[in-house]
Amino acid sequence: MHLSHADILALEQRKRAQLINSITGTKNPCLIGTVDDSGQTNLAIFNSIIHLGAHPPLIAFVQRPDSVARHTFENIVTTQFFTINHIHGGIAEQAHQTSARYDQSVSEFEAVGLKEDWKQDFPAPFVQESRIQLGCKLAQVIPIDLNNTKLVIGEIQQVFFPEKCWEEDGYLDIELAGTIAGSGLDGYHELNQLFRLSYAKPNEMLIKKGD
Amino acid sequence: MHLSHADILALEQRKRAQLINSITGTKNPCLIGTVDDSGQTNLAIFNSIIHLGAHPPLIAFVQRPDSVARHTFENIVTTQFFTINHIHGGIAEQAHQTSARYDQSVSEFEAVGLKEDWKQDFPAPFVQESRIQLGCKLAQVIPIDLNNTKLVIGEIQQVFFPEKCWEEDGYLDIELAGTIAGSGLDGYHELNQLFRLSYAKPNEMLIKKGD
Repeated sequence: MHLSHADILALEQRKRAQLINSITGTKNPCLIGTVDDSGQTNLAIFNSIIHLGAHPPLIAFVQRPDSVARHTFENIVTTQFFTINHIHGGIAEQAHQTSARYDQSVSEFEAVGLKEDWKQDFPAPFVQESRIQLGCKLAQVIPIDLNNTKLVIGEIQQVFFPEKCWEEDGYLDIELAGTIAGSGLDGYHELNQLFRLSYAKPNEMLIKKGD
Repeated sequence: MHLSHADILALEQRKRAQLINSITGTKNPCLIGTVDDSGQTNLAIFNSIIHLGAHPPLIAFVQRPDSVARHTFENIVTTQFFTINHIHGGIAEQAHQTSARYDQSVSEFEAVGLKEDWKQDFPAPFVQESRIQLGCKLAQVIPIDLNNTKLVIGEIQQVFFPEKCWEEDGYLDIELAGTIAGSGLDGYHELNQLFRLSYAKPNEMLIKKGD
């Protein structure tokens, strides 16, 4: 099946959104936790979260214009802090439900039935049910004028994860922690490991780690 | 297990790179195909590829400084075009092998044994073995000074995918096409669908699509 640029633009809007959101590949859905300056918490699912660098440890996500999740961005700008919480199969439906358009006076934690987790004096709430949690400090907001989105960059300040998932070489087995992947606007998938591969060099065979 | 910012910075460099690359969540590894102005092709795996928007259809990836994949970026700046090709389990090892530091005179297509696919007069090579292929035109390069990376944004011009994977509402079943996910620097995972969920509204039960 082939679609040209004109074919893509001619698709009905929701159908185009589904196609383009799917065809760009596997997504990384996570829950972002924030609080406003009155203490009102907020929780929102984002699926365009990327690793930006390890030193300094940076993570980024895309903020859309007029998004249901606009309170997340307002809170981050106000407080400078946010949490990123991995989603496993047991909380995927609750995580998806945070995308509903709740009033600002409603905390999505309470609305969807997930618990706030305050610890290490970190000034934003983690999700207690999440097994891998990152505490981040706002580092930079980069406007993307092409489509009126923003790249929001955070520096990782605190991390929490199950010790059994941490391998000797530093790799964290997120599949063992139940972390899921996303596709399109509403698809959720468990991970099923194929292999880890050795560092690639020209004219050298790859080795499957653990083999 | 808890690590503070100081703990993270104190980790041995490769161990920190493994941890931070893993803990930022599920990755989206794809092959980017380019050509230079002398006709020399290049193929490189990138795992920080994100959906940026559906209208216009935009996709972005992170270019690291001094990366093995620097030729990809040079070619994109020169020709303005590149392809993004999904990876399935049958080509994951070859895809990983493209990250080896080959000489600029070597085409990774040939070195790892993947075939160039030229079609629709598109001025960059697709990967013939890939089942979902996107042809992109450079839209913008945004420097990220925090860690000397760049966000490279492309507008999707052409898409190719298996017709059987395209659902009525526009969703593309990338799992059915065998598209894989990544974790850390070297982990590869097949997808195993949990469910698709209905559009979330306050005080309404989510429906699992297809149920």
